[in-house]
Amino acid sequence: MKLSSLGERRIIDEIWKTLGRNVEYDDCAVIEDNDYTLITTDFIGEGTHFMDDWDYSLIGRFFASINLSDIAAMGGIPQFFLSSMFFPKDFEFEKLSDLVKGMEEQLQKYGVTYLGGDLKESKIAGMSGIALGKVEKGKILRRRGAKIDEGVYITGALGKQAAGYYLWKNGHEDGWKYLLDVEPRILEGRKLAGRASTCMDLSDGLWHTLEQMEKINNIGFKIDFDEIPIHPLAYEVSEDFGIPLEILVLSFGGEYELFFTAQSRILGREIGRVAEEGGVWKDGKRIGGEGYAHFSKALDKIRGQ
Amino acid sequence: MKLSSLGERRIIDEIWKTLGRNVEYDDCAVIEDNDYTLITTDFIGEGTHFMDDWDYSLIGRFFASINLSDIAAMGGIPQFFLSSMFFPKDFEFEKLSDLVKGMEEQLQKYGVTYLGGDLKESKIAGMSGIALGKVEKGKILRRRGAKIDEGVYITGALGKQAAGYYLWKNGHEDGWKYLLDVEPRILEGRKLAGRASTCMDLSDGLWHTLEQMEKINNIGFKIDFDEIPIHPLAYEVSEDFGIPLEILVLSFGGEYELFFTAQSRILGREIGRVAEEGGVWKDGKRIGGEGYAHFSKALDKIRGQ
Repeated sequence: MKLSSLGERRIIDEIWKTLGRNVEYDDCAVIEDNDYTLITTDFIGEGTHFMDDWDYSLIGRFFASINLSDIAAMGGIPQFFLSSMFFPKDFEFEKLSDLVKGMEEQLQKYGVTYLGGDLKESKIAGMSGIALGKVEKGKILRRRGAKIDEGVYITGALGKQAAGYYLWKNGHEDGWKYLLDVEPRILEGRKLAGRASTCMDLSDGLWHTLEQMEKINNIGFKIDFDEIPIHPLAYEVSEDFGIPLEILVLSFGGEYELFFTAQSRILGREIGRVAEEGGVWKDGKRIGGEGYAHFSKALDKIRGQ
Repeated sequence: MKLSSLGERRIIDEIWKTLGRNVEYDDCAVIEDNDYTLITTDFIGEGTHFMDDWDYSLIGRFFASINLSDIAAMGGIPQFFLSSMFFPKDFEFEKLSDLVKGMEEQLQKYGVTYLGGDLKESKIAGMSGIALGKVEKGKILRRRGAKIDEGVYITGALGKQAAGYYLWKNGHEDGWKYLLDVEPRILEGRKLAGRASTCMDLSDGLWHTLEQMEKINNIGFKIDFDEIPIHPLAYEVSEDFGIPLEILVLSFGGEYELFFTAQSRILGREIGRVAEEGGVWKDGKRIGGEGYAHFSKALDKIRGQ
C-alpha cells in the first residue's frame, strides 16, 4: 500500500490504530502541568515545501512562523524553539546563516528563545521545528466545542498564498515570496484564549479546515463566501489566469490565519454561523461537490501534502 | 563556503555566533521549572543514516533509542516523545507502520508517551525525534564538572556498531543490524544522576567524546586502552578485515553508551582517570596524532556526520 493512496489524515489514523489508541487531533500536543505546556513540530523540506533558489532568510522566517502558528491556535504564549536541521554536504553556509537569521528574527519578535537542536547531513535540505509554549488551563483553545448559532470567524484575508503559488508556477519569479509571507497570529490567539469556543489555524486552507471542524464537532459550519476577506492578489490572479476565485480562497491554504467560533465577535471577520447544515454558500448555492474535491486534491498533490 | 569545509561543530558555532550568543553545549536543552524539563531532538535520514532496504522496525527502535539517549546522558527520566516524519509519496505504508511499531515498543519499554508530531511529504524518507523528560535540579548530569583524579567510566562495550558497519559495507547483509542495535542507558543514567560529576553519551565515539570533554573541562582524560570493554564482534572484524582495533573502538562511535566521571565507581567499567595530561594510552604509548585524526574524519564522512 502506497502512502499516496492513503492521504495524510488516513496515514495518521493508521499510525494511531497501529499503536492501539484513539486520539483527539489538535494543533499541539499538550502536557499537563500548572499551566498546560504546549509543544508542536512542523517540517519543511527542499523541493517539496521550498526551492533551493528561494531566499533562505524568508524560508527561515516562514519556518519559525508555521511552528509558532500552532501555539497561537491553542491560545498559547510561545516560549522556546528548537530545530532539527539537515543539509547536503555541499550546501552553502551563507544560506544556512540566512535561514537561521530569518528564523531568529521572527522568534525574537514574539519573545521566543531558541534552544538549539540537531544538525545532520542528508541528501536534501530540510528542517523540523519544535515550538514550546504555555497556556493557562482555563484558557486553552481546542478544536472541539463549537455550539449551534455561534459565529464563525477568521483573522486576516485568504488567497494570497495560493495566488503567489500560481504566479511562481507561471514564471513570475517572486511569486514564492507571497507563499512564504505568513504571520503566526500569536497576539490574536492570546485575545481569543478563554473566550473563543474553538480555534485552529488555516494552514490546510478553509475548505479542509471546515471538513475537519465539522467532523470533530459533528455539526455544520455554514459559510457565506461573500463575507470572506480576500487578498487583492487573489482577485488579480483569478482574473489574469482564469482560475475561479473560490479555488484560490478555499482550497490551497497556507495562510496560517486563525479560524474560530465564538458567541459574539471578539476580533476578525464573521464569515458564517455554526448550524445544523454546513457548507460554503454563494448566491444561494452551495459550493463544492465531487469536481471541487478533486481539484482540491490535485492542488494538494502539487503542494506535497 | 561549503558546509563540508566547516564541519558540524564549526557550523553550530557559526550559527550561535550569527545569533550573537555564547552557549555551553550539552546533550539537551534545559528549561527551568520545579524540576528541569529536558528536551532533545535527533534526526535520521534515508541514504545517510539508514538505507531503505533495512528493517524499518529496527530503524524505528533505533530512532527512539538515540533520542532517549540524550535524556539518559543528563540523568533524566524520559516522559514524552514526538516525531516529525516525512516520506516520498510512493513510500510503502507497511514500512512506516513497522517504523512506528519499533519506535513505540522502545518508548513503552521506558514508559514514554508518544504525543504525535508532524507528517509530511518529501523527496526522501527521514524523521526528527523530540524527546522530553525531567530531572531533579540537584541531580542533573552535565558535561562540565570533571575534577582531577576522578575515575573515567563507560557503560557497556565499544566497537559493535563500527564492526557491523564494516560487515555491511563488505557485503554481509545483516551488518547494519549491529549498527542499529543500541540501547538508551536510561536506568544507568538515573543511577548516576546526582552522583557522577559529568556525563555524555558516546554517540560520537570515544575519541570525539574525549576531545569534547577535555575542551569543555579544560583538563585531560587519561585513558588506558586495555581497560576499555570491547565487543567480541570488533575483535572478529578487526582480524578478518585487518582494521586496527583502535579504530573500531575509538573512532566510529554510534554506541550510545554513557561516558562519565566520578569520585569512585558507581557502575560500568573504569577506563582511566581525569589528569593534567590526557590521551588514550596503550603499551606505554599515546595513540592518535595526525593520521589518526584523518582516518577518523574519513569515517565521519562516510557516516554523514
